[in-house]
Amino acid sequence: MSKTERWGVYEVALEGPRDGNPFLDVEVTADFSYKHRSVTVDGFYDGDGVYRLRFSPDTVGEWSYVTNSNVPELDGKRGTFACVQPHDGNHGPVNVAKQYHFAYADGTPYWQMGTTCYAWNHQGDDLEEQTLQTLAKAPFNKMRMCVFPKSYDYNRNEPEHYPFEGSLEHGFDFTRPNPVSFRHLEQRVQDLQKLGIQADLILFHSYDRWGFADMGEEADDRYLKYVVARLAAFSNIWWSFANEYDLMENKTMQDWDRFFKIVQENDPYQRLRSIHNCRGFYDHGKPWVTHCSIQRPNLDQVAEWRKTYGKPVVVDECCYEGNIDHGWGNITAQEMSHRFWEGTIHGGYVGHGETYCHPEDTLWWSKGGVLHGESPERIAFLVKIMEEGPHGLDHFKLNWDAPCLGQHGEYYLLYFGIKQPAFKKLALPEDGEFTVEIIDTWNMTITKLDGEYSGEIRVDLPAKQYIAVRIRRV
Amino acid sequence: MSKTERWGVYEVALEGPRDGNPFLDVEVTADFSYKHRSVTVDGFYDGDGVYRLRFSPDTVGEWSYVTNSNVPELDGKRGTFACVQPHDGNHGPVNVAKQYHFAYADGTPYWQMGTTCYAWNHQGDDLEEQTLQTLAKAPFNKMRMCVFPKSYDYNRNEPEHYPFEGSLEHGFDFTRPNPVSFRHLEQRVQDLQKLGIQADLILFHSYDRWGFADMGEEADDRYLKYVVARLAAFSNIWWSFANEYDLMENKTMQDWDRFFKIVQENDPYQRLRSIHNCRGFYDHGKPWVTHCSIQRPNLDQVAEWRKTYGKPVVVDECCYEGNIDHGWGNITAQEMSHRFWEGTIHGGYVGHGETYCHPEDTLWWSKGGVLHGESPERIAFLVKIMEEGPHGLDHFKLNWDAPCLGQHGEYYLLYFGIKQPAFKKLALPEDGEFTVEIIDTWNMTITKLDGEYSGEIRVDLPAKQYIAVRIRRV
Repeated sequence: MSKTERWGVYEVALEGPRDGNPFLDVEVTADFSYKHRSVTVDGFYDGDGVYRLRFSPDTVGEWSYVTNSNVPELDGKRGTFACVQPHDGNHGPVNVAKQYHFAYADGTPYWQMGTTCYAWNHQGDDLEEQTLQTLAKAPFNKMRMCVFPKSYDYNRNEPEHYPFEGSLEHGFDFTRPNPVSFRHLEQRVQDLQKLGIQADLILFHSYDRWGFADMGEEADDRYLKYVVARLAAFSNIWWSFANEYDLMENKTMQDWDRFFKIVQENDPYQRLRSIHNCRGFYDHGKPWVTHCSIQRPNLDQVAEWRKTYGKPVVVDECCYEGNIDHGWGNITAQEMSHRFWEGTIHGGYVGHGETYCHPEDTLWWSKGGVLHGESPERIAFLVKIMEEGPHGLDHFKLNWDAPCLGQHGEYYLLYFGIKQPAFKKLALPEDGEFTVEIIDTWNMTITKLDGEYSGEIRVDLPAKQYIAVRIRRV
Repeated sequence: MSKTERWGVYEVALEGPRDGNPFLDVEVTADFSYKHRSVTVDGFYDGDGVYRLRFSPDTVGEWSYVTNSNVPELDGKRGTFACVQPHDGNHGPVNVAKQYHFAYADGTPYWQMGTTCYAWNHQGDDLEEQTLQTLAKAPFNKMRMCVFPKSYDYNRNEPEHYPFEGSLEHGFDFTRPNPVSFRHLEQRVQDLQKLGIQADLILFHSYDRWGFADMGEEADDRYLKYVVARLAAFSNIWWSFANEYDLMENKTMQDWDRFFKIVQENDPYQRLRSIHNCRGFYDHGKPWVTHCSIQRPNLDQVAEWRKTYGKPVVVDECCYEGNIDHGWGNITAQEMSHRFWEGTIHGGYVGHGETYCHPEDTLWWSKGGVLHGESPERIAFLVKIMEEGPHGLDHFKLNWDAPCLGQHGEYYLLYFGIKQPAFKKLALPEDGEFTVEIIDTWNMTITKLDGEYSGEIRVDLPAKQYIAVRIRRV
């Protein structure tokens, strides 16, 4: 019996009709069963007469399946496979945990430290391989990336593959997805998975010269179902319904609501779902939104957004480290590192991106390649600190100007940001003893103060910017 | 005939009763007349049987006066004096000009660059003289200072004089102002005037251990009339009704409205009137408010506040350069300089303050003394640049991320703040030629680009923070 590890992908490939338009004409699903439980998944046409059904089992044991189709040759096919223990390092998909946080399916905390290379998967193998090599050494565990190619400043090259049959010159047939393009996308999603990186897949965006931003309702909905049928089984998939949804002039709020519902109805695994804004937010309180995906530079608002929406807050875009002309793409490494700390201390998660001018316009934010900035090292330092602390921390204030991420009585991580206090008075619990460490978040040093502390204390600080204090119960 | 210069102070001193309580019992006013125009001013009791009437003439020529009183010996006194041309450098009082700006009475633009030493006038002559020496070399042309002494962190010393008769131990008699204290205050106001510095006199504040923050309506109102009678004639007086009005728990919005009206009714010169907040703003749209006095760190909002209130916006408190523990008192010199530029470019005015830890707690912000910071030099550089440009500039944007203070077609001052663009594309008018200068606001350099420019241009920039660009029609 064939074996697939827990949270891996079991795939059934079947030969079927090639005539007509198989994308429109043929329906095929499969019921995957473990004991009395059954999960229905949609199949998809992969070109060349091949139909595939993908399933990601979440339970170890023997699974069986049977197909259903409006085409006899795809109907009633049966099989079994064994779902076995995952290999070390496969923690399963990421889900919301402790209301404002994330964890892998096996309970391991997931500290979201994302980056953005919108169109890295449309750059050809040389650059894409280089991007993967860079990611292997970088601290990021999430990548924001687009299904569709992107047309925007610094980013005008034609993609290697188009998501639909056709050409820029003669137009595209939105009834015929291009399997080559999607196989390539899946390869890149799996490449990320091997590196432990979540793929926050952006389903729509407005930076378009091919027509993919304006395909019409019917094609939009069919496209979503096709993407879900192909990709939902990969456990590192997150669905991002749009980048800057509010810049897509021809889509209404009703469209976005419908898109969420379509994916919610068709995704057997309920992968994470979000939508990213330019100006006004989509209402992240709607029940189908799993977490906030926000573009804003003011990370001190994260605590407010947590309260408003009652969900994890991911500020996927807080400007990019770089020096291009656009105001969203020219903050310093210090400022980027600061915004990660600011967002974290307010109880949220932050996303990175990089936009340094480059002679060939190879900017990380759009194309990937190599990183030139100084913030990733600091973000790695932050990850390390977060991993050393408890999971599911709350944001509160130790006093009015000491924002803190912590667990009352146990753990306090304070961050003073662009301020440069020479000292701070803090009130720790009277019971028990605490260690106090001064963290220079820019220079990445941790200095432990001698002794142990409790009650009212005065902590001398280096009177410079970007200083944090970590206080832990002994 | 005695002479007083235009916008100077002509004073009439009269002997009168000492018995009873002259502050309550005696009323004296004078009508000062020039041709058919008459201006009534209130006199005040200055102790030791002396009553004074102060008048600041705004018109050159011969003035006469006659007194009116409920006491015969102060009634019907007459005199004349000549109002002569002011000496060089006396531009008269500051008023609102061009809706969002300020100018002296003689039309000279006034670029508000204020500082704050709340209680410098309560520190004794040695420190006060040192403060004046510091101010003589500093760029500031406005001082925020309190009539009452202040009781707050770093600021617990008893004042030299109390504003009312009495003592901390036995309480104060709010019906008996202390002339010694007020004479001292007037001396300091005049010392500032000699240095060309406006005195933004804070009439109430909550940092109090003597009872001056909670004297009751009757005493509050009488106090205001006394202050106006004594001080309104000094042409560098601005009335600031409170520092952090909203922290004064025992005063209502009706109290503040009444205070404004009392001063408006009693001040013959209609000196500038404002009120400063901690959290929520007083409604600066009310007709008796001449300009907004704001505490906020986010200077990019200045353009919004201009629109909301239609008046000059002065951000009197945007945090202080320093390193004390309080979050409002530990920004870097870079950040302070940046906030001045940010507020200026958005069409407003900003205030300075300094709070570096000091072995004797002599912090500029409360006590004066000497300046330790690095922002004043940058503020002086900004003043120089503003003085070189036209008066009455507007805030607009040359594109979405190029905030600009300018005059369409003539003058553009852009500032990129904490961003570090390597270049910027700008659209100048097609007609005429413009010079382009790159200003490093922190290093205080101005680099003029070769040649002259018009239409669409690309300006290469140093890809660092705190850069401005000045574009002027040739």
